[in-house]
Amino acid sequence: MKLISSAIIVFLLAGFAAAQRNFDQPSPYSAQLTAELKLLRDGALKSDYAWDQLAHLTNNIGPRPAGSLQANFAAQYVADEMRKLGFEVKLEKVVVPHWVRGEETGALVQFPGMAPGTTQKIALTALGGSVATPGQGATAEVVVVNNFDELNALSPDKVTGKIVLFNARFDKQLAATGHGGPAYGQAVIYRAIGASAAAKQGAIAALVRSVGGADYRLPHTGGMFYQPDVPKIPAAAVSAEDADLIAYLARQGSVRMRLVLTPQQLADVDSYNVVADLKGSELPDQVVIVSGHLDSWDLGTGAIDDGAGVAVAMQAAHLVKELGLHPRRTIRVIAWMNEEFGNSGGRAYAAAHKEEAGKHFAAIESDLGAGHPLGIHMAAPAANMPLLQPVAQILQASGAGLLQTSEDAETDIGPMCAMGVPCFGPIQDDRFYFNYHHTAADTLDKVVPRELQENAAVMAVLAYALASLPKDLERPTAKPARAF
Amino acid sequence: MKLISSAIIVFLLAGFAAAQRNFDQPSPYSAQLTAELKLLRDGALKSDYAWDQLAHLTNNIGPRPAGSLQANFAAQYVADEMRKLGFEVKLEKVVVPHWVRGEETGALVQFPGMAPGTTQKIALTALGGSVATPGQGATAEVVVVNNFDELNALSPDKVTGKIVLFNARFDKQLAATGHGGPAYGQAVIYRAIGASAAAKQGAIAALVRSVGGADYRLPHTGGMFYQPDVPKIPAAAVSAEDADLIAYLARQGSVRMRLVLTPQQLADVDSYNVVADLKGSELPDQVVIVSGHLDSWDLGTGAIDDGAGVAVAMQAAHLVKELGLHPRRTIRVIAWMNEEFGNSGGRAYAAAHKEEAGKHFAAIESDLGAGHPLGIHMAAPAANMPLLQPVAQILQASGAGLLQTSEDAETDIGPMCAMGVPCFGPIQDDRFYFNYHHTAADTLDKVVPRELQENAAVMAVLAYALASLPKDLERPTAKPARAF
Repeated sequence: MKLISSAIIVFLLAGFAAAQRNFDQPSPYSAQLTAELKLLRDGALKSDYAWDQLAHLTNNIGPRPAGSLQANFAAQYVADEMRKLGFEVKLEKVVVPHWVRGEETGALVQFPGMAPGTTQKIALTALGGSVATPGQGATAEVVVVNNFDELNALSPDKVTGKIVLFNARFDKQLAATGHGGPAYGQAVIYRAIGASAAAKQGAIAALVRSVGGADYRLPHTGGMFYQPDVPKIPAAAVSAEDADLIAYLARQGSVRMRLVLTPQQLADVDSYNVVADLKGSELPDQVVIVSGHLDSWDLGTGAIDDGAGVAVAMQAAHLVKELGLHPRRTIRVIAWMNEEFGNSGGRAYAAAHKEEAGKHFAAIESDLGAGHPLGIHMAAPAANMPLLQPVAQILQASGAGLLQTSEDAETDIGPMCAMGVPCFGPIQDDRFYFNYHHTAADTLDKVVPRELQENAAVMAVLAYALASLPKDLERPTAKPARAF
Repeated sequence: MKLISSAIIVFLLAGFAAAQRNFDQPSPYSAQLTAELKLLRDGALKSDYAWDQLAHLTNNIGPRPAGSLQANFAAQYVADEMRKLGFEVKLEKVVVPHWVRGEETGALVQFPGMAPGTTQKIALTALGGSVATPGQGATAEVVVVNNFDELNALSPDKVTGKIVLFNARFDKQLAATGHGGPAYGQAVIYRAIGASAAAKQGAIAALVRSVGGADYRLPHTGGMFYQPDVPKIPAAAVSAEDADLIAYLARQGSVRMRLVLTPQQLADVDSYNVVADLKGSELPDQVVIVSGHLDSWDLGTGAIDDGAGVAVAMQAAHLVKELGLHPRRTIRVIAWMNEEFGNSGGRAYAAAHKEEAGKHFAAIESDLGAGHPLGIHMAAPAANMPLLQPVAQILQASGAGLLQTSEDAETDIGPMCAMGVPCFGPIQDDRFYFNYHHTAADTLDKVVPRELQENAAVMAVLAYALASLPKDLERPTAKPARAF
């Protein structure tokens, strides 16, 4: 596909010249680099490549949980696509856990005011990593708590042998004001470690109110982690509606529930990070990573989490080749494996490339969906801002001109960031992201084509700019990566 | 609960007097009637009674499909509640079908670009009344059509032995502009009669894109009807996302699907319309019905469809008693049974009360959820407008002052309307109704407490006004009731 006509190039160069005249300080970028970045931006905003790749990953391949046939097939697919572009491709081995969802049903079998002889179905889904319920399932009274303090305040006889429901609400108002991440952060702790907390008190199973903003009877799955010294009890997420129902009934009297979960933890599986290089023309040893994660949860088809991230990283590669550009440093597209289940891909890469950490000039990952990007966040010293301001200026044309520092990097690049690599990602509109996150409804239609193009523009422009910067970035000091 | 203080009554009467001075024509209503209507309105806007009843029906009793234990238990519950208020209660027998949902799964087993050895899960739910798939399920190629014309244009060999997907889209834009009903009407025909249309062409199963606006991987069930002279084939609704997925893949090549549905059509069951009378003080033979339907679909707990309608009808009864009012005509609360599955309740009532049709002064039903009511629609001659204008004026205080004529009455009262009874219902904001309609997500939280109060105000004021009007309404000419 020919993206850019000569007439447009002339127009862009003219626009650049006009912009130059409006600023007192000369840009730290050459006129050629600036023109190339604008070509990348405008190419991304017109191209269907990222969308077509995302459609293939989600519709043709489908859910890609770590350890699945689909995940490894997707890795081969991305590798092939990168080879088609002329990139040097390696599949770097990652050993991943292989947890497989089974039957999962819940029913209230006793509750106040019930019609005799009836039950009420509870919409739920096992949390990733949960053990199975024993035999014919677990049937017990449900104890509802809103937080760990309420759980810990209960005497052990109130919890022993019971099912604990953590009814911590996802703060929809906070998410609606553009703080989906903090809203998620507040609530996800119960999903992550609630089961062990409940088991310590003698509970036989743990339920968590779904961590997300949807109100469509949709349970949100996600990873959970057992404390080594505590009995492993089965754990599931119930939909927000079902949490409300159980809490309502439990205020009136005893509520008993039957829970059946039959997931299996199978043997670990060999899987792969796809690592695809376009060698730099001047500094081929210096690497700029542009990436997303290829694995998804099993319920949906992983469009927003994180097929979109992979697709926009692929688009950055595609456009650089399409436009015949030659980055000074190596651009390395990575499709990470197993972000969702312990970040083994990110950790394996960091371990394998530890000695080359200093050669990693920067790493970019997109892993917050494909909402309209407002700009770029940077887990690196603020002193880098002036050097990156021209990138922000170029991206402002599609409303992505913010440049902010952040505490954390995205999960997969977190270990590299912890080794002192400057890390970057798009700042995205995440107001709707947590409505779909980790649910069956994470499907292609949740991505707005134009917004995917805008994200691709951020990734392509930023990756190429970093790969072409005239001088070094200041690097962050090492710190521990995020636990999950 | 004491609803209205004396001070407020004085204030309301003063307000009425002030309003009187602002109009040239004297109100056709006495000062007392007007004051009473305002008391009802303000009482409804403050009371929790409707909410508490709705919470009990949905949370404590749960889904109430016709023929279920819950449906009949709910009828007994409403009867008891009406008796508590001092109403004369009859349970009028309705024979209802008893269709029970079974296992329901769908999986794409062959499709372009698939990872070898994998399948993709399809989110679907059997349509009400569907037969089961044979033996181990049906596996066949899926043929996607957008409408009946496309189906009929296919040569029989393209359809014979296949599964037909009717991919007619629910018009979300139309619904978003406040025309949910028309959007529903356009699409629901495929759900209702698609299976027989496909079977005529030799299909072995029919799928319909869910009729509704949600994008949360949520299938919408609903009634379907077999043509007597055509083989009965199983029928299910797939979520909008799954319809998109299948259509996308089918454009690329052959898509084969395995469909398992095991619903059962059991023997008919005796059930009941709950008919509760507060006898009129002057014209006890003349009846004003105020109603909603008690049965729901089985997936959700029937909050918007139509627990809310029953709750606001009960609230009308509750407030009239609470305020010690004495309607001239009999107010008859009806909780209808089996609107969803052939309207046997509405038809049974019309058959049983055929001789008294002339004594039915009016009938009101609420069956479009509990969105903010904008006013009242009337399936009766426009000549009645002036007589009802004071009602609209009183309801304008909560934004419900519209008065419009309509072609149709709500389903349960349709047969009475067809016998010449003036029929009424609230005009509701239905922009969100069809997102949840007939899904697992039709639960209590979808009702906004304040909006339920506003709907109760419309029902209570309108019912009492009709029961107290100083003169007769002009009656509609008989016409056939809606088929479904």
